[in-house]
Amino acid sequence: MTTATRGDADPALTLYQAEPFNAGTPLDALRRSFITPQGLFYARNHAPIPSVDPATYRLTVTGAVRTPLLLTHDDLHRAFPAETLTATLQCAGHRRAELIAVKDIPGQSPWIADAIGTAAWTGVPLRAVLDAAGVDEEAEHVAFTGLDTAHLEGHTFPVGTSIPVAKARQPEVLLAYAMNGTPLPPRHGFPLRVIVPGYAGIRSIKWLQEIRLQAAPSDSYTYTHDYKLFPPQVEKETADWATGLPIGEVALTSAICTPAAGAVLAAGPVRVEGYAFAGGDRDVARVAVSGDGGQTWATADLDPDGSRWTWRFWSCTLDLPPGHQEVVVRAYDTAGATQPEHAAPLWNFGGYMNNAWHRVTLEVGR
Amino acid sequence: MTTATRGDADPALTLYQAEPFNAGTPLDALRRSFITPQGLFYARNHAPIPSVDPATYRLTVTGAVRTPLLLTHDDLHRAFPAETLTATLQCAGHRRAELIAVKDIPGQSPWIADAIGTAAWTGVPLRAVLDAAGVDEEAEHVAFTGLDTAHLEGHTFPVGTSIPVAKARQPEVLLAYAMNGTPLPPRHGFPLRVIVPGYAGIRSIKWLQEIRLQAAPSDSYTYTHDYKLFPPQVEKETADWATGLPIGEVALTSAICTPAAGAVLAAGPVRVEGYAFAGGDRDVARVAVSGDGGQTWATADLDPDGSRWTWRFWSCTLDLPPGHQEVVVRAYDTAGATQPEHAAPLWNFGGYMNNAWHRVTLEVGR
Repeated sequence: MTTATRGDADPALTLYQAEPFNAGTPLDALRRSFITPQGLFYARNHAPIPSVDPATYRLTVTGAVRTPLLLTHDDLHRAFPAETLTATLQCAGHRRAELIAVKDIPGQSPWIADAIGTAAWTGVPLRAVLDAAGVDEEAEHVAFTGLDTAHLEGHTFPVGTSIPVAKARQPEVLLAYAMNGTPLPPRHGFPLRVIVPGYAGIRSIKWLQEIRLQAAPSDSYTYTHDYKLFPPQVEKETADWATGLPIGEVALTSAICTPAAGAVLAAGPVRVEGYAFAGGDRDVARVAVSGDGGQTWATADLDPDGSRWTWRFWSCTLDLPPGHQEVVVRAYDTAGATQPEHAAPLWNFGGYMNNAWHRVTLEVGR
Repeated sequence: MTTATRGDADPALTLYQAEPFNAGTPLDALRRSFITPQGLFYARNHAPIPSVDPATYRLTVTGAVRTPLLLTHDDLHRAFPAETLTATLQCAGHRRAELIAVKDIPGQSPWIADAIGTAAWTGVPLRAVLDAAGVDEEAEHVAFTGLDTAHLEGHTFPVGTSIPVAKARQPEVLLAYAMNGTPLPPRHGFPLRVIVPGYAGIRSIKWLQEIRLQAAPSDSYTYTHDYKLFPPQVEKETADWATGLPIGEVALTSAICTPAAGAVLAAGPVRVEGYAFAGGDRDVARVAVSGDGGQTWATADLDPDGSRWTWRFWSCTLDLPPGHQEVVVRAYDTAGATQPEHAAPLWNFGGYMNNAWHRVTLEVGR
């Protein structure tokens, strides 16, 4: 396997790590377009980017199936229906920086609210491939393995995960070969990436080489010793990994994209803009914004675009008095749930799933 | 329509209102049995309890259907399959008392964590009845109307609501005629009650008289001017009801059942017990308990009983030092979401959907 370059990744991305390539989208750019341009889409990689020759690429479908399949790049484009779905992907480590501010999380990138993006994904519905292979009754999980090889704490392993068969059979789960109407670039998984809407990005395995139907969840090190949610009192060194919650569906979140934290503004009406994302199969029902640290709230306007698989853009005009003003956002989902107030009680040694109220402090002059 | 009595309602229930009959389950009794005994199941009524003669009872299935149906009590028992599902019901006003402590909510019962219960419901899957009637394509909502007549702010109306057709078609939604193996008692909806697992109790209409398929949600006053969630800044007198969120799925919650708030205990190990409920189609993934107001946490043991349609019982032993000790519980669901810290930011004039961390203060002696 040779490695590919970053391709058309926009130089405006915030670089967290050059190799493997990890970079986030500037928040003002994120809020500029409901569909995130490919060059600005956040990149989260665990290993060098594989360079895959479509002529020799094969996808294996194996395990508890009646007919194992070996599919070529052409098979995927010609032997199956193509569907397009707009879906938001969000990294499990999204907004980790706010957890690091509570207590350090060594060795993990300090993502702000920039590890999220929305694209129109085109590809084969996973269930069409499962139907072609014929899933045995004992299969409960669909395991995915990528062509990327990660190194973590002395272990070397292909990045892998799994999702329940019941989710895999839902119409929204795709094997995508195109993003926003053009072929996937190598850094986003060319030639094939699973897209699992509503789940954390880690479940959307890139450079997919194998789909395995099995009774148990994935035994990949990625799944068993990474991307697990622990409570605040558990330390990495003494964690019993079997007791961690594998991160699947993501939790309701929201963020302020503009004005930027620390912005200096004149007193008076200020337009505040951002996004909210419900995760799972829920939708965003309401967004509330506060100009005074959460004492009083206004209801934001929600843009009409979106579905339960995507974020929702919102905007609000606040009348801010002079001084340091803490602007806060929180969303409600279709179950009437809203977000936790503070990041501290959400701290976990992996730095995952921070969905506290998002806060920016503005300097408002006279 | 004549009215029925409270029947075998346990005198141990906490009476919030004699007429209509509204009563909650003592928390220690709630935690004693995974299946709540019928006599101890919380009762939330909007009107006198209808007394229904099964010989003359008819259920109408109408609206956007190919074949309107008029079903007798016998039809429901003999012409359709019977299924049993264990499901937790929770009132939208569950834990309102903690919101009232923030700011008064006149005219609403101060439910503590006692407006919840779990029963084995037996009846006809709603989808079997929908299939028999043949649902037209334009139908998006299934509206339910009860035989009870409520009075609210000068309006008199039969209690009604609706659920989306997509939910109505799920296997968990039942038209129940039995509860814990015996016929529904009048106060719980005899002869027929809709059971909508994962949704607030108001969607599980009692004394069901009509099912109507329609393009729009319910136009019942119950649905349009009650059971809506507003943000904290909205006042009842000036609310624009069209902007309220109709309460459907309930939000993740948890509660401490024993020891009771204010209990006087000796210092040392204290066994703490309670329940957690995820709502929607999510499951409880973890319960964390704190003996010091949320500064440090322990992971509780989860009882094995339960499903995504039911609560989960948990227990934990804390070593409490002498003094006033605030014991706190919060749950995580299968999306990695946890509960908000405080009730104040959740305040709303209807007093709905308080799912803040549940706190009890104990007096620990030497």
